[in-house]
Amino acid sequence: MRLEIAVLAIGDELISGEISDTNTARIANLLRGRGFVVREARCVGDDEARIATALRELARSHQVVLVTGGLGPTRDDLTARAAGQAFERPLILHEEALGLIRDFFHETGLEWDPRNEKQALLPQKALAIPNITGTAPGFWMRHEGCDLVFMPGVPEEMAAMCEREVLPHLEELCGGLAPLQERVLKIFGLSEPRVEGLLDGADLPGEIGTAFGVDYPFVHLKLRLAGERDSALLDRAEGEVRERLGDYIVARDDETLAGNVGRLLTEAGLKLSVAESCTGGLLAEWLTDIPGASNFFDRGAVTYSNEAKNEWLGVSKRILLDQGAVSEDCARAMAMGMRQAARTDLAVAITGIAGPAGGTAEKPVGTVFIALSAGDAEQAKGYRFGGERYKVRRMAACMALEWIRRYLAARGGTRPGR
Amino acid sequence: MRLEIAVLAIGDELISGEISDTNTARIANLLRGRGFVVREARCVGDDEARIATALRELARSHQVVLVTGGLGPTRDDLTARAAGQAFERPLILHEEALGLIRDFFHETGLEWDPRNEKQALLPQKALAIPNITGTAPGFWMRHEGCDLVFMPGVPEEMAAMCEREVLPHLEELCGGLAPLQERVLKIFGLSEPRVEGLLDGADLPGEIGTAFGVDYPFVHLKLRLAGERDSALLDRAEGEVRERLGDYIVARDDETLAGNVGRLLTEAGLKLSVAESCTGGLLAEWLTDIPGASNFFDRGAVTYSNEAKNEWLGVSKRILLDQGAVSEDCARAMAMGMRQAARTDLAVAITGIAGPAGGTAEKPVGTVFIALSAGDAEQAKGYRFGGERYKVRRMAACMALEWIRRYLAARGGTRPGR
Repeated sequence: MRLEIAVLAIGDELISGEISDTNTARIANLLRGRGFVVREARCVGDDEARIATALRELARSHQVVLVTGGLGPTRDDLTARAAGQAFERPLILHEEALGLIRDFFHETGLEWDPRNEKQALLPQKALAIPNITGTAPGFWMRHEGCDLVFMPGVPEEMAAMCEREVLPHLEELCGGLAPLQERVLKIFGLSEPRVEGLLDGADLPGEIGTAFGVDYPFVHLKLRLAGERDSALLDRAEGEVRERLGDYIVARDDETLAGNVGRLLTEAGLKLSVAESCTGGLLAEWLTDIPGASNFFDRGAVTYSNEAKNEWLGVSKRILLDQGAVSEDCARAMAMGMRQAARTDLAVAITGIAGPAGGTAEKPVGTVFIALSAGDAEQAKGYRFGGERYKVRRMAACMALEWIRRYLAARGGTRPGR
Repeated sequence: MRLEIAVLAIGDELISGEISDTNTARIANLLRGRGFVVREARCVGDDEARIATALRELARSHQVVLVTGGLGPTRDDLTARAAGQAFERPLILHEEALGLIRDFFHETGLEWDPRNEKQALLPQKALAIPNITGTAPGFWMRHEGCDLVFMPGVPEEMAAMCEREVLPHLEELCGGLAPLQERVLKIFGLSEPRVEGLLDGADLPGEIGTAFGVDYPFVHLKLRLAGERDSALLDRAEGEVRERLGDYIVARDDETLAGNVGRLLTEAGLKLSVAESCTGGLLAEWLTDIPGASNFFDRGAVTYSNEAKNEWLGVSKRILLDQGAVSEDCARAMAMGMRQAARTDLAVAITGIAGPAGGTAEKPVGTVFIALSAGDAEQAKGYRFGGERYKVRRMAACMALEWIRRYLAARGGTRPGR
């Protein structure tokens, strides 16, 4: 049985432009792991009438509605009241919920604040759901064939509650599911129509569905297989795609390009250091975001000033004076100097003009030089990337990673995109 | 006149968990600048029937529906078809749209791909909207008192189209609006209930509304004033809040804590360098994300290995051996060494255990030491931060910024939170 599931995220900040709703994606990811699919997602503000309307509408057209947000202790947390209004159930002080809140305060040694009692006011006949990472308990209620599950809006609390308390019950509800199998191939260096063009006439098994997504600067190609079918079909489809897109596939599924590079370095037993100017630490941050980064990452230098490039990386004053800090020679010298200083197997360097200011006629905003020092050679090259500051920085850091990935692929026999 | 506006974001990737929808927040921000408010936001996948249903429902209950996504050239881009189906209008090859697409290819020197012709298939009586940054034109249609505006899903293209082509028409539609005035105070170091408790009984002007938001690890307090009222009321409210929350307010409105620190450093004519271990470049990345960062930022060291701490920052082998890299002495030595190496006015250092591995009984995951070298002294202190790796890293980088902000506040006479 396939459940029709909707997500409702509540909070003024989600529709005011202040922040983006990330809970929906997080819920969808958790559900997908168990074979559930979200059909629709909505955001409404902290407005009791609008929350109630959304709850009623979603309950009519779905079998499960997962709600996040508005369970907190402050006055603009209105979800429980709105649920009561939507389904005509008075709010009652829920003894079990109150117990859960008091337990949390007791266990974490936090000072009890009477404001938190408000969080135990739930619609009649609701079941309280424990919150192991925060004060607000969730709750579960049923209305005319629809299960409504209310979780906190704090992403960490929501995710923990969803995983531990909600998913097992959903699985009971529908007696187990055949999960949708999906494989995501992450493509770097080809546009979406180019990818589709290259795949025209590809001999994919008929059971495989395909879809596209973009996560700048990557294009994601999704291969999907519904139901209990043999995952060898996905392998066959992936093989077919790889034959046509080849080395443009830089990562797969949950792995990022940085994660892939980190894994390849670890497998090869190689150490990396990075020298960054215009990316200002972005590349180092991506690499060290990976648990276990110390296995392959030695150090990074964010050499914003010319003095730093000269002192730490040994870039000569002559290069800085004659060619300037944004030049092929400077990038090459940065990579060489970095590798010598850190005594790592590889070093990569990035220097450029991310904008909005600093561009010239000769070197406009978006001009970026990348260099790699590895084995017994250095290579360096200039690019002109488009878009705003954050896009130039992202693209530059991705390109540097891609240089490392291609170097490792050419060097070893392992398949780099896996 | 206040328009009822809804946003509909289309794409499988938005409800599958692959990415979060950021377009809604971007649209809401653009609208807010002109006094418009989004009332509801929805996401549906690339499914013609579901898109059509959402369009019909939203058109019934709103005066304006802003749609993004699904205008691309590939087979899973179904928005124009769904719009045609929803309002019973056949698709036609729209000559003006085709001209806009051809113009874009001509101007950017891209090779013409016949697949792009699909992007000119629009519902009858739709008006094409030019896309200056990409191939897919948008379109505008009216159905029974509702204006529906269709924009591409690529955030940059969507934002440019919304700002240049859509907002001016919306303003015409309602003959100009008195914008909602809002001030956001960003609070660091107090929980949401603590903030609400401190504000209990505050003498805010009656016209001022308040709301809360969380952007980890910050609490946002929003002061709102509707209509054409005097913004001095906001100033008065802000003054009242500052008296109660004082120095916990670390930034205001669009400024981030990093942006605030960067501005204070620039105003004071001071230069900063940073030495990072567990944050791995995150702090440097935040600081260099600010245009003009070279005015206050000299360099950063991502000294992941002990060798790097010793060679670049002069942390003695004795400290690394006796106290370890995660220690107060090491943090202090890192800050001192960084400041000496870079000859900057200030240097800040972070070392800790971000997890998930690497913790011990004595130094569990979340143990972080921060040090600041400035003026004629160094200070250092240990913390124990909660949560996952990314939370520990974020909290550590924020705390280091807060140290700098407080140092600058104590040093100069300027108000640090402005």
